[in-house]
Amino acid sequence: MSTSLPTTADDPTVPVPDTPADTPTLDVHALNADASALARKFDGMVSEETIERIVYESYTTLHRSARVKTHLAALAKHFAEDRIRALAVARGAIEATVPQVLFVDARNSGRSQIASALLTHYAGGNVEVRSAGTNPGHEVHPEVYEAMNDRGVALLRAFPKPLTDDVVRVSDYVVILGDVDEPPRYSGKEYLTWDVAPAKGASADEVRAIIDDVDTRVRALWEEIRTDE
Amino acid sequence: MSTSLPTTADDPTVPVPDTPADTPTLDVHALNADASALARKFDGMVSEETIERIVYESYTTLHRSARVKTHLAALAKHFAEDRIRALAVARGAIEATVPQVLFVDARNSGRSQIASALLTHYAGGNVEVRSAGTNPGHEVHPEVYEAMNDRGVALLRAFPKPLTDDVVRVSDYVVILGDVDEPPRYSGKEYLTWDVAPAKGASADEVRAIIDDVDTRVRALWEEIRTDE
Repeated sequence: MSTSLPTTADDPTVPVPDTPADTPTLDVHALNADASALARKFDGMVSEETIERIVYESYTTLHRSARVKTHLAALAKHFAEDRIRALAVARGAIEATVPQVLFVDARNSGRSQIASALLTHYAGGNVEVRSAGTNPGHEVHPEVYEAMNDRGVALLRAFPKPLTDDVVRVSDYVVILGDVDEPPRYSGKEYLTWDVAPAKGASADEVRAIIDDVDTRVRALWEEIRTDE
Repeated sequence: MSTSLPTTADDPTVPVPDTPADTPTLDVHALNADASALARKFDGMVSEETIERIVYESYTTLHRSARVKTHLAALAKHFAEDRIRALAVARGAIEATVPQVLFVDARNSGRSQIASALLTHYAGGNVEVRSAGTNPGHEVHPEVYEAMNDRGVALLRAFPKPLTDDVVRVSDYVVILGDVDEPPRYSGKEYLTWDVAPAKGASADEVRAIIDDVDTRVRALWEEIRTDE
């Protein structure tokens, strides 16, 4: 970003309409179709109006943080569906048969994605796992993808998402990784803080050490959750 | 944020519950009361369920970016009400009698706040003005407050807010200030791009020059809006 002050050559008295080629017009037909499909799926649990709002706001919030806008509508649909389901479970419209766990870090690009994938790996369908960031990054760190793949735990459908109320509300356990602003605290949940190093800027060896660290903690957490239930 | 890897002294096998004194439990009674008051105010325009969601999500999103959490519930209520009103106007549930203008920059901490206050100053009740940031800052720059005060245009109730779908959707004019990711583009709106220097890190003189620059552009825009109507 330039910090120079504008010159008179800019002729600031004339607002210049500008339509960069890489900012396509919003595909409202696709978003409306997504909202309709989700409204049918969650019929009687969350209203059509609320679902439409969650779809559009999910798109807009991902649009703010994603560098690559390709596939954004598809990601927004996944994100919106996760949020609507969280809301339905939090309200008891869908029965929660397993503990709900949320991993939060700053960027949702490394640590929280690792923790989320590992807990899903160990617990299988016996927990429902989500992750979010207080200031989501542009993409999941490629080295994290690679190191997790090498370990045989693929990051599927992983993309940085902002922390929202719905996913906090549904959670039984909220795990905060690293030095990050706390999410809002609801009573009746278990909040845990893990001092894990960030994956951003880490070497391949360091990423593996971070994964080892998270792995140890995730297995201890899964043991604790299993014992609590 | 520390980049050092954890040592074994941390004993990572034991998740440590942690309740920092500065993260109070969410005041759900206050937020529910806000949601009820707004549901009465927008009765028949936006559903109670959607309003409850907007109140909680507005709180959570401000909580992510605000450094000082004091007064957050009050700010969230203002933010939620602005969004609900935008939605009601966008849907025609409230008649828009004046043009709707949105100023967008990166942080909603300087340029977009200046533009918003100046257009409100010049146009009075003849436009409805909003502002937002694609990556909202922690607070409005104090030098901006001061310089605007010196000019006799106070920044009232100004706080950094993220860009949301509702405020884009309601707008006739979307003005993007500086080098920032474009907001989603709806057809049928006028999008303008202004090359204005950021107020972040600017000296008092530079802030005054930025305000002069924005002032010239805002007066030209107001002239254009008046002519278009």
